Amino acid sequence: MHTDLVAALDIGGTKIAGALVDGDGSLLVRAQRPTPAREGAEAVMGSVDEVLGELMASPLWDRAGSVGIGSAGPVDAAAGTVSPVNVPGWRDFPLVERVHKTAGGLSVALVGDGVAMTAAEHWLGAARGYDNALCLVVSTGVGGGLVLGGTPRPGPSGNAGHIGHISVDLDGDPCPCGARGCVEGIASGPNIARRALENGWRPGPDGDATAAAVAVSARAGDPVAIASYERAAQALAAGIAATATLADLDIAVVGGGVAGAGDVLFVPLRRSLREYATLSYLRRLTVAPAVMGTDAGLVGAAAAAIALR
Amino acid sequence: MHTDLVAALDIGGTKIAGALVDGDGSLLVRAQRPTPAREGAEAVMGSVDEVLGELMASPLWDRAGSVGIGSAGPVDAAAGTVSPVNVPGWRDFPLVERVHKTAGGLSVALVGDGVAMTAAEHWLGAARGYDNALCLVVSTGVGGGLVLGGTPRPGPSGNAGHIGHISVDLDGDPCPCGARGCVEGIASGPNIARRALENGWRPGPDGDATAAAVAVSARAGDPVAIASYERAAQALAAGIAATATLADLDIAVVGGGVAGAGDVLFVPLRRSLREYATLSYLRRLTVAPAVMGTDAGLVGAAAAAIALR
Repeated sequence: MHTDLVAALDIGGTKIAGALVDGDGSLLVRAQRPTPAREGAEAVMGSVDEVLGELMASPLWDRAGSVGIGSAGPVDAAAGTVSPVNVPGWRDFPLVERVHKTAGGLSVALVGDGVAMTAAEHWLGAARGYDNALCLVVSTGVGGGLVLGGTPRPGPSGNAGHIGHISVDLDGDPCPCGARGCVEGIASGPNIARRALENGWRPGPDGDATAAAVAVSARAGDPVAIASYERAAQALAAGIAATATLADLDIAVVGGGVAGAGDVLFVPLRRSLREYATLSYLRRLTVAPAVMGTDAGLVGAAAAAIALR
Repeated sequence: MHTDLVAALDIGGTKIAGALVDGDGSLLVRAQRPTPAREGAEAVMGSVDEVLGELMASPLWDRAGSVGIGSAGPVDAAAGTVSPVNVPGWRDFPLVERVHKTAGGLSVALVGDGVAMTAAEHWLGAARGYDNALCLVVSTGVGGGLVLGGTPRPGPSGNAGHIGHISVDLDGDPCPCGARGCVEGIASGPNIARRALENGWRPGPDGDATAAAVAVSARAGDPVAIASYERAAQALAAGIAATATLADLDIAVVGGGVAGAGDVLFVPLRRSLREYATLSYLRRLTVAPAVMGTDAGLVGAAAAAIALR
């Protein structure tokens, strides 16, 4: 049997997406279900099985040689389990074993969603051709992944690059993770919106109080909205600079909903990065927006499956 | 010719050490000169040549197959140049080419001193058997290096793991590097002493106002001395936790003069680390004192030379 395809699963708190993917990263067959995130473990697994079932019903399924999973974290790649923060029913859930069984015994690779996004950007996106990269997903949370020496490096647990929970403010606000001053607590979309509201920004007539609405105000010159993005950019810059200092990076790629703010985020981000990434070997460091969009999770999960070969 | 040895050079702001090293990491022949750090580039290189000359005069020299250099940083491993902060006469100094010439054409490997110490601790010391490690040198400055996936990873520039200049306090005090709130600005020996003095600690009759003297006071129960070490431990913990979160580490090994404070540093360090390293995949993270002592630089430089083979 010629197995030139892989199956990919992208598992998040909102949706479970699947695809059959070829060696060029093209998504040939797709399936999707909402994540029943408030229900029990088997209900969530039932949705995964439905997505897999739809892929298995495709005449192309016989060409799938392995399965790659990118999952909301934390994941435990060594144990093959996942405990997504936003899916309370899954704690140390043996996802690899269950998918292996449903998928008729195919090999299964598991990585965190930040690592999957990074693999996608490195394979076909903004980090292509860079041997040492950090890719960030800045949205409801802040995740990420690393490429080192030309290869995505998920680490033994599958979570490496999780920049949202490094402290850049050691005396700062407590974070739900238990630490203080984490990047996510300053730079995530909800925190950009919260800080703007706390400092007097008010949503427009449509009542939209998200970070995207704050970005619209910032673009119109609202100083409170601008300041909230600048503070997010400062925290991201400190985190990116720390990662670049530690890992000797060439590029940081920033995606996720907050990156959709464009120059409102990237102009202060590049400025702050010059302030924090000061060592001579970081002169080459560049920042670029992510380009893979919402398919990054599936493409990255496919890359993880291909790496199994 | 059977080349079962390597030559190792450890270049710092105070001394230039050299050795012939066998495949077990034993130092068979040693040589050393003070670093004429205030003199010009050729005077410093003259001392390197003298150290090499002494090694080359040994009957064992013919068995040396390559040369490894661990140098005070920053280094540029790709260009083969060094610019040690404490040796102003060397800026982008072509050390690899010069040593290659002096050493009769042997291949030369160059890494930063933090990377060299890390290679030594991983080869024969406290990080032995750990596949993912950060090793720190906490003394006048704060340096470090990484082991990832079982191999020391100096990064393309040779400086990866340089934890002293990551910001853990994004609004903190300006650092000579240009950034703010760097680990080194809080946790280095001189900063431990400065903070104690600023808060009312006074040296004893011998006038010793170093971090080592502060440690003696802390061991005797002086609350200001204890607090200064606790603050250093907190900054080191935030930096170690950040590195572990990003790189998915098994162990952090702490050496350098400040680590000589023993429990005065390690007890608050382990406590603070539990506060900052909170994610589930960091549960396995341990901290250990370095064990390789002052020969770590030479042993690590030898490891870099052996890796050339």
